[in-house]
Amino acid sequence: MRKTTFEAPSALSLIFNIIRSEGLINRTALVRKTGLSKSTVSLQINKLIEKGLIREVQPEGAENNVRKLQIELVPDAGYVVGVFLGIYKLSITLFNIKMEAIREMYYDLESAIDPAVINPLIIEKIEEILKMEKVATADLWGIGLGFPFPVDFQQGIPETPPNLPLWHQYPLKQIYEEHFSCPVLIDNDVNVMALGEGYSGIAQDEKDFLFVKVGNGIGAGLFLDGRIYRGDKGSAGDIGHIAIDGESRLCHCGNQGCLETIAAAPAIARKGLEVAMTGESPLLSEIYRKNNRVTAQDVGDSAQRGDMYALQIIRESGRNIGSVLAKLVNFMNPRMVIIGGGVAGAGNIFLASIRESILSRSTHLATIDLQVRFAELKEKCGPYGAGRLIIEEIFSSARFSQTINDYL
Amino acid sequence: MRKTTFEAPSALSLIFNIIRSEGLINRTALVRKTGLSKSTVSLQINKLIEKGLIREVQPEGAENNVRKLQIELVPDAGYVVGVFLGIYKLSITLFNIKMEAIREMYYDLESAIDPAVINPLIIEKIEEILKMEKVATADLWGIGLGFPFPVDFQQGIPETPPNLPLWHQYPLKQIYEEHFSCPVLIDNDVNVMALGEGYSGIAQDEKDFLFVKVGNGIGAGLFLDGRIYRGDKGSAGDIGHIAIDGESRLCHCGNQGCLETIAAAPAIARKGLEVAMTGESPLLSEIYRKNNRVTAQDVGDSAQRGDMYALQIIRESGRNIGSVLAKLVNFMNPRMVIIGGGVAGAGNIFLASIRESILSRSTHLATIDLQVRFAELKEKCGPYGAGRLIIEEIFSSARFSQTINDYL
Repeated sequence: MRKTTFEAPSALSLIFNIIRSEGLINRTALVRKTGLSKSTVSLQINKLIEKGLIREVQPEGAENNVRKLQIELVPDAGYVVGVFLGIYKLSITLFNIKMEAIREMYYDLESAIDPAVINPLIIEKIEEILKMEKVATADLWGIGLGFPFPVDFQQGIPETPPNLPLWHQYPLKQIYEEHFSCPVLIDNDVNVMALGEGYSGIAQDEKDFLFVKVGNGIGAGLFLDGRIYRGDKGSAGDIGHIAIDGESRLCHCGNQGCLETIAAAPAIARKGLEVAMTGESPLLSEIYRKNNRVTAQDVGDSAQRGDMYALQIIRESGRNIGSVLAKLVNFMNPRMVIIGGGVAGAGNIFLASIRESILSRSTHLATIDLQVRFAELKEKCGPYGAGRLIIEEIFSSARFSQTINDYL
Repeated sequence: MRKTTFEAPSALSLIFNIIRSEGLINRTALVRKTGLSKSTVSLQINKLIEKGLIREVQPEGAENNVRKLQIELVPDAGYVVGVFLGIYKLSITLFNIKMEAIREMYYDLESAIDPAVINPLIIEKIEEILKMEKVATADLWGIGLGFPFPVDFQQGIPETPPNLPLWHQYPLKQIYEEHFSCPVLIDNDVNVMALGEGYSGIAQDEKDFLFVKVGNGIGAGLFLDGRIYRGDKGSAGDIGHIAIDGESRLCHCGNQGCLETIAAAPAIARKGLEVAMTGESPLLSEIYRKNNRVTAQDVGDSAQRGDMYALQIIRESGRNIGSVLAKLVNFMNPRMVIIGGGVAGAGNIFLASIRESILSRSTHLATIDLQVRFAELKEKCGPYGAGRLIIEEIFSSARFSQTINDYL
């Protein structure tokens, strides 16, 4: 017989999280929403007010009416930090516990190759930001980090990063926890970006969606029934190595014809270089003469300026991605597919090819209400998602009482 | 800002469901597991005893020791029925609320084509079984039904059944609810079978698995994070119409090269007929001469007897199914893939081809602990899963208080 685990959220965490979700709410509505007795709700509210986590406010125009008192979070009771690392970019955002961004910083990196260089840098930047905003380290309640490689989510350590071998099993979670003495969660970039769009971006109303990042690699974040689904070993969403049948190009993973090898940025750049060198594409030829190289962005830009061969390369990439997504849409029946990552910059032709390819090969029921859209948050997506990763954890019913005991 | 919905399980339902999951538990353990106060736990236990839903029992050898008193469900406090319909078969099982099977009945049908014939028959059989076991209709707390076509799960009505057009939008849920005046849930066959294996079969310890039925069609049930995932329109797991790239055979859905058209029972029979008619397979030729037809089961049997051409047909089917499953395994990273349905009878060669094809094309992380196994429950799988569908619903925290108010 299957054993079920039961999680009983305390009245305290339940009430706090309803206030957090509603923004502003009065006692009567809290009693109704929780199903708890008036006296229990009052008791818990008083406890949270005493702790300094929530406060009562008088709406304008109702100054002397106690029954109109509303409850809200005390935003600066505590803070969290969201960190997002790319190969050449680092973004860090400081949030208060209401998830209002207090300070957003974006840095260029020479490269993220060496963890022994990058992690001290991240720590230094976090400390700088805390100082700028006069936030004491003791008021930092948690840090969420998104990294550009597979991460063992439970352990918080990188798992065979394909292009950054020095990071393999680097004790990331431990380093940040020991330095800042606060809870730390680490996840891969796509899961974090899915959280960003799911909480602050285009998918705020969606229960089930798929976030697909198309950049140097291709990966997906699965947001199912309102939360990130990670699978047995945390590798759910690893769609870059799904085979395009009939394609034989060798992938760095050792298999042939992987989607990533056929359709991600390096493949687009490679095909762009070909038509630049043959002279078929005058625009790309000119770029090649000037820069001595062709990037995926060059191909995307040329496509947007109407270059036929560049258009064909972008369309082909979109079609291949769409042919894989069609299978996954049949399988999981999401309500939205969000396309993000650098190649998304190739614009509407790219999105249209993906959409067309999905629609032509998915079932009626799976596509009847399906939306295929570009991500919305741009550079905010990563750090906002990383902040969300940690704030949902520290305020979860399982962890809430520890959080307030530790910090208040 | 994403709005989160909060569900506060009452102490009553929490305590009841822990007793249900544990089978036998004492008060001290209940206090520990719930995190509730001793007095709250006592109060709720007394309420449940009063209602006749649980009882205290004295373990043997501890007759006079009140502290050793254990609590268990009163099995015959109520009953549920699980119904599973195939094209030519009907199974009905009566369970007590402890999910012990009281009576299991299996019927052959001429065909399930006409809902106006089949549904009165199912109702008649349920009533017969209740009578046999002297269970009053008032003690029937719910009915779960699994049907061989897509079902709008919320509404409980069939949605464009591919081979049973008369069932389209037939008001199934309403018919059973009105007749038996109890809660009714209806789902498609694969979701119900996944529940069967997940609660009573091979996957009782798995949090994430995929149940794949290979019969006249091919479909999958997704069991994720301990529950069936249905997707936005309930079509999640609809893998029969995933394209096998490079295949052009027309499918009844209107697309070309769908997995179902290439690898399900009718395709196996068709290929068997070909090698029977050319005489390449002596075994199948003989079967054809005798019966004037070749079924998928004939091909499976011949393969198990060593017929080379039959073996090749079964292997080819396994490979095609495996090539689609490889993509889905990368995508969802389940811990187990269960193969069930009629074609599973083709035996280990079939399973081995599927497994080989998955392993050759999935990533390391996705396959490191992956098990690919045959379903275990055989004909019990459907009715057991259907019973599970309804019992988890009536005892869910959202519905528990209504259930005991209605019936006790």
